[in-house]
Amino acid sequence: MAELTLYTFDWVPEPPRGFVRDIRVRWALEEAGLPYRVAAVPFGDRGADHFAHQPFGHVPWLTDGGLSIFESGAILLHLGARSGALMPTDPCGRSEAVQWLFAALNSVEMASMPWSLLAFTGEPKDAPAWKFFDSFLMQHRLAHLEPVLAKREWLAGSFSVADILMADALRLVDRFDGLAAYRACRAYVARATARPAFAKAHADQLAHFAAGDRARSATDGPGV
Amino acid sequence: MAELTLYTFDWVPEPPRGFVRDIRVRWALEEAGLPYRVAAVPFGDRGADHFAHQPFGHVPWLTDGGLSIFESGAILLHLGARSGALMPTDPCGRSEAVQWLFAALNSVEMASMPWSLLAFTGEPKDAPAWKFFDSFLMQHRLAHLEPVLAKREWLAGSFSVADILMADALRLVDRFDGLAAYRACRAYVARATARPAFAKAHADQLAHFAAGDRARSATDGPGV
Repeated sequence: MAELTLYTFDWVPEPPRGFVRDIRVRWALEEAGLPYRVAAVPFGDRGADHFAHQPFGHVPWLTDGGLSIFESGAILLHLGARSGALMPTDPCGRSEAVQWLFAALNSVEMASMPWSLLAFTGEPKDAPAWKFFDSFLMQHRLAHLEPVLAKREWLAGSFSVADILMADALRLVDRFDGLAAYRACRAYVARATARPAFAKAHADQLAHFAAGDRARSATDGPGV
Repeated sequence: MAELTLYTFDWVPEPPRGFVRDIRVRWALEEAGLPYRVAAVPFGDRGADHFAHQPFGHVPWLTDGGLSIFESGAILLHLGARSGALMPTDPCGRSEAVQWLFAALNSVEMASMPWSLLAFTGEPKDAPAWKFFDSFLMQHRLAHLEPVLAKREWLAGSFSVADILMADALRLVDRFDGLAAYRACRAYVARATARPAFAKAHADQLAHFAAGDRARSATDGPGV
């Protein structure tokens, strides 16, 4: 089996820690029990080689032998084809997982990302933009997702990469207390993040960036 | 071969016409030369059967024999596996197309959708939310996409479903004049929308909703 290498930043500031998207890939790899190594690229100085692998200068990307794949959705779809722990193997179950994987990204995160960004930047709650994106997420997305999640443990029969992406999108909403009115969504996030593979992935990401702190301190020297 | 049926609304208001997401599926089906029929569901009264096929009450969805698939990204990935006209058939080219398909949705449209929504709702150009999402789209996305598109005709070697999604996301930005500073992005949209399959899909969508107008007038009766 070709060696899998996950690329992420060497360091990030405090606020995004625990939410950098390499966690989606770590989580999937831990669920599948696939061996992998983690490689770090500079957060501060993103060179041509970085952009050659990730054209927007982001992370993560994954190499699998001769393949280099960016976009967490594409990576998880790729890993899903490698492990039945990540995606059903029958065509019908697989199709169900794939559509929910896209729904997590293009229906739910499409609405939750602007909402989370405005929550993070402190947009006033009476501003038109906040009201618009709050309604977009709450009434047009979570209100429809709620009855779905009230009736099933996981999106596509058994746990799959669709749940990794959906739970990861929703836990950022939960961070800004946006799931208070959606009990099934909140319970789903709790259920997903209680999985040992998530706990390992989360702890590993925090430890990785803490090591980045220590490397920076060492570079700055003892007097700083 | 199982019959393909594309489900869309029976009618929509003027502003979204030409941009309703069934156009992505129509475009792909026309590119592939796959026979299909179009079925309409009520725009005004979305019942339980609609939500059973599309849990957010949107369109489109596609049925392919016993499979029912929602999310335009999932549908295009499904069709890509059926036709070499929509996705390279070698593993490396296919992986390239899949990652750009996700990039179109989760990197570019993730930024272009809030920008387009604020442009449509007339958010003032000096409002913090406009400045934030304008920078998000322009500096953090289009500025990186521009050199990519300046160097290649299509995203993944040959034309693929990734181009359908990317061009469709970008043409909504172009509608609100957001590509003025990104000549390669604008030329790419012009190149993509000059394809006969797009022209057919676009004309068919407009004709479909115009027929919806006539059906409404007929229902209203001659006195209205």
